[in-house]
Amino acid sequence: MNTIDLNSDVGESFGRWELGDDAAMFRSVSSANVACGFHAGDPSVLRATCAAAAASGVQVGAHPGYRDLANFGRRFLDVDPIQLTDEIIYQVGALQAIAKTAGTSVTYVKPHGALGNAIVHHAAHAQAVVDAVKAVDATLPILAMPNSEILTRAEAAGLRGVPEAFADRAYTADGRLAPRSLPGSVLHDADEVAERVVRMVTEGKITTLDGVDIDVSPESICVHGDTAGAVTMASRVRKALESAGIVIRSFV
Amino acid sequence: MNTIDLNSDVGESFGRWELGDDAAMFRSVSSANVACGFHAGDPSVLRATCAAAAASGVQVGAHPGYRDLANFGRRFLDVDPIQLTDEIIYQVGALQAIAKTAGTSVTYVKPHGALGNAIVHHAAHAQAVVDAVKAVDATLPILAMPNSEILTRAEAAGLRGVPEAFADRAYTADGRLAPRSLPGSVLHDADEVAERVVRMVTEGKITTLDGVDIDVSPESICVHGDTAGAVTMASRVRKALESAGIVIRSFV
Amino acid sequence: MNTIDLNSDVGESFGRWELGDDAAMFRSVSSANVACGFHAGDPSVLRATCAAAAASGVQVGAHPGYRDLANFGRRFLDVDPIQLTDEIIYQVGALQAIAKTAGTSVTYVKPHGALGNAIVHHAAHAQAVVDAVKAVDATLPILAMPNSEILTRAEAAGLRGVPEAFADRAYTADGRLAPRSLPGSVLHDADEVAERVVRMVTEGKITTLDGVDIDVSPESICVHGDTAGAVTMASRVRKALESAGIVIRSFV
Amino acid sequence: MNTIDLNSDVGESFGRWELGDDAAMFRSVSSANVACGFHAGDPSVLRATCAAAAASGVQVGAHPGYRDLANFGRRFLDVDPIQLTDEIIYQVGALQAIAKTAGTSVTYVKPHGALGNAIVHHAAHAQAVVDAVKAVDATLPILAMPNSEILTRAEAAGLRGVPEAFADRAYTADGRLAPRSLPGSVLHDADEVAERVVRMVTEGKITTLDGVDIDVSPESICVHGDTAGAVTMASRVRKALESAGIVIRSFV
Repeated sequence: MNTIDLNSDVGESFGRWELGDDAAMFRSVSSANVACGFHAGDPSVLRATCAAAAASGVQVGAHPGYRDLANFGRRFLDVDPIQLTDEIIYQVGALQAIAKTAGTSVTYVKPHGALGNAIVHHAAHAQAVVDAVKAVDATLPILAMPNSEILTRAEAAGLRGVPEAFADRAYTADGRLAPRSLPGSVLHDADEVAERVVRMVTEGKITTLDGVDIDVSPESICVHGDTAGAVTMASRVRKALESAGIVIRSFV
Repeated sequence: MNTIDLNSDVGESFGRWELGDDAAMFRSVSSANVACGFHAGDPSVLRATCAAAAASGVQVGAHPGYRDLANFGRRFLDVDPIQLTDEIIYQVGALQAIAKTAGTSVTYVKPHGALGNAIVHHAAHAQAVVDAVKAVDATLPILAMPNSEILTRAEAAGLRGVPEAFADRAYTADGRLAPRSLPGSVLHDADEVAERVVRMVTEGKITTLDGVDIDVSPESICVHGDTAGAVTMASRVRKALESAGIVIRSFV
Repeated sequence: MNTIDLNSDVGESFGRWELGDDAAMFRSVSSANVACGFHAGDPSVLRATCAAAAASGVQVGAHPGYRDLANFGRRFLDVDPIQLTDEIIYQVGALQAIAKTAGTSVTYVKPHGALGNAIVHHAAHAQAVVDAVKAVDATLPILAMPNSEILTRAEAAGLRGVPEAFADRAYTADGRLAPRSLPGSVLHDADEVAERVVRMVTEGKITTLDGVDIDVSPESICVHGDTAGAVTMASRVRKALESAGIVIRSFV
Repeated sequence: MNTIDLNSDVGESFGRWELGDDAAMFRSVSSANVACGFHAGDPSVLRATCAAAAASGVQVGAHPGYRDLANFGRRFLDVDPIQLTDEIIYQVGALQAIAKTAGTSVTYVKPHGALGNAIVHHAAHAQAVVDAVKAVDATLPILAMPNSEILTRAEAAGLRGVPEAFADRAYTADGRLAPRSLPGSVLHDADEVAERVVRMVTEGKITTLDGVDIDVSPESICVHGDTAGAVTMASRVRKALESAGIVIRSFV
């Protein structure tokens, strides 16, 4: 039986500011990347998000980021690697306690935003993430881009690395995401996205921006949920996968 | 054999800013109230502090405060009680993970600053703290002022409450701290402070600001460490207690 | 000719988080209370808001609050009054520079949220606001609740105080806002609100929660804009006033 | 008559955390780079610093940095350039209002820390700073490293650029600062530093780390003040300059 995980970023409201429709996303995904307070998410948002994930049978992953609320963790911050390790331990630990009180637990880690992008190639930050996860709980898998510093180093450290693909992003021939500045780098048509995802899972292929097929073998597909259109797209992706006989199931 | 715990606030540096001589304090105290990042302390400060406490055989307590770096948690913030509960769970959980990676663990909770003052009488914030500790780990004692909402509610909830006394603060006849605005409310003479502490422990008495003796039975004495003079005073208190045959030992 | 000012809180987005439809509100109001960064609003939000206000012919007011992004400035913070004065000077000055680069200027000050509520009765915080405005620019009026510490002290200090009324809030017999905890304290029917506002302006009367008429003489009416319903209500209020022959015009 | 400006970073305390002995530095320097709240400095610190500078006859410069208290603005943050412009306008404007209430005014701008380092070569951030200063007040000079993007672009925009040299840092042959990772990159001997500074001013020469002389023509020399040793060194530099017949005087 063919299965795949769907993951999405949630818990990204903060105080007065609401972002995303997490309840709607929990009907589509099997894994919830929950913000940990450094780029988004306050403790009450985290608790409500963990409780809702638990009620929906969705796995809770820690989604730590750079310490930068003003930029939502979306800008590279050249932080000292040892400090970064400590910041990730802190964020994961905070979410672990919150998750526990919400009747669930943290079962994986997925770095957020600019940190997630940096650790594809930034060796020191990638190692800092690995060191943090190993220190907190070496059984937690790290969900990240394949062919990356982070997954290589995770596996070298004896951690499980879980490769993901992005539902709505175009790829280049080397298997990396096409930069957002390129035309066509972000896909907006829900049907096209759903078809691509089904092909990733059933055939293990993605057509790149240049029109070439490359091999992929993701264990999880990332779908976005921070706009109304994104929520609809996630739902479409799930239905297309189910129609193709694929079961949506956590990788944990 | 007579024993008493000495506790002090530590881990209160933040980024570029250093505060206190924690290493020196660890030679005097048996319990370290470690800041959790909301009023002071960043993740790297917390890790270094936990590691140093562990190396010195000092217990690590979580020292959560109001979310207010700009005021060091020293000003009352009328936060929603449910949110306060979540904020304390978050802080304690973060420190638990940090402590674990430093080879130790969080063994008690002591609320900080304005929160510590508020929960002497503010029922909703006191209950919020109790709810948080119960949710995180109901075996963690709460260290706080005696005859207070917080200790009453802690015990009503089945938690252990540990009453403390302050080494260098004057008391009023009702067993509360004399307001800092009153002359004589803070004691500065190390010998006088040391004598008072010995008497608290050996006789269970404090002479109030009005010259009356009141009964006290602290399980811990709070000493300060954020100035050079304070570090000296803490050392003097420890020596005076040891000279009186009292063993400095954690209440845990 | 009868005129009245309509004011609303704007510029309350922050980084990734959007709040309110400021562009829509600028079609209804004559005065924009622009957040200054301490409770909401980042520098780019402030610049865009000032530019849009300028383009719409709407006055820019500084809307300083307590330093508390996590609570959106909506919770009382017992900050030292001298520090509060400095924090308000800082916020107003920052907005003055931003407004200038956007081709407009700050023409009044309206304290936000919990600060706005506190200075109705909290003498020290009210005086702190007055001291700040006097220090920055003594020609700036302060927009606030009538019969309040803040307006009394503003006038005693030689500043202009501008009394406001709230379009969608019920009043008690003493001219204060009915607490939000009381049933009926917030009005939701746009037609009812529009009628009340017209009567405030044309007759100088508001019917209280107890059914009694009290006298009011606001120079400005506060309308909300942070929800879709609120934007509609503001538009309805404006149209009702114009239908009654009242011109919407800034008090400056 | 030969004159030179001495500048130093001040106003870098924050809330409970004190940093530097600004009062002592004001006896040595002619220009004070005052933090603006984004990397350090709260409004009350800024006001006290401006008042002390005014009382000492020291010029007040704005010292804006990246929005990053946790790293003291010392780590590169890849912020959007337009946002950076707005953040600098905000910071300078806030300090202008504070300075005015303290009886003085902002007379120049010197970017701080990682921002100051980035704009030596990072064209977009350099231009963002130039755009901000031009928008706030095009008469304000920018104090920065010579042969840098920032000074080139400042002058191209019609702003005055003021080149500075560092008293206690080693240089490489291209006139840049030797990286702190190189042995000998930071000078610790006060007499050696004082001699170097006198030679910079009287002969226009610095001996590089490789032992070669290069030409320099600074209009200001940066001295540090954040440690006790640094304060002593600043005092020594001033005395050595005065002994050589050089007058310490602001470049404004």
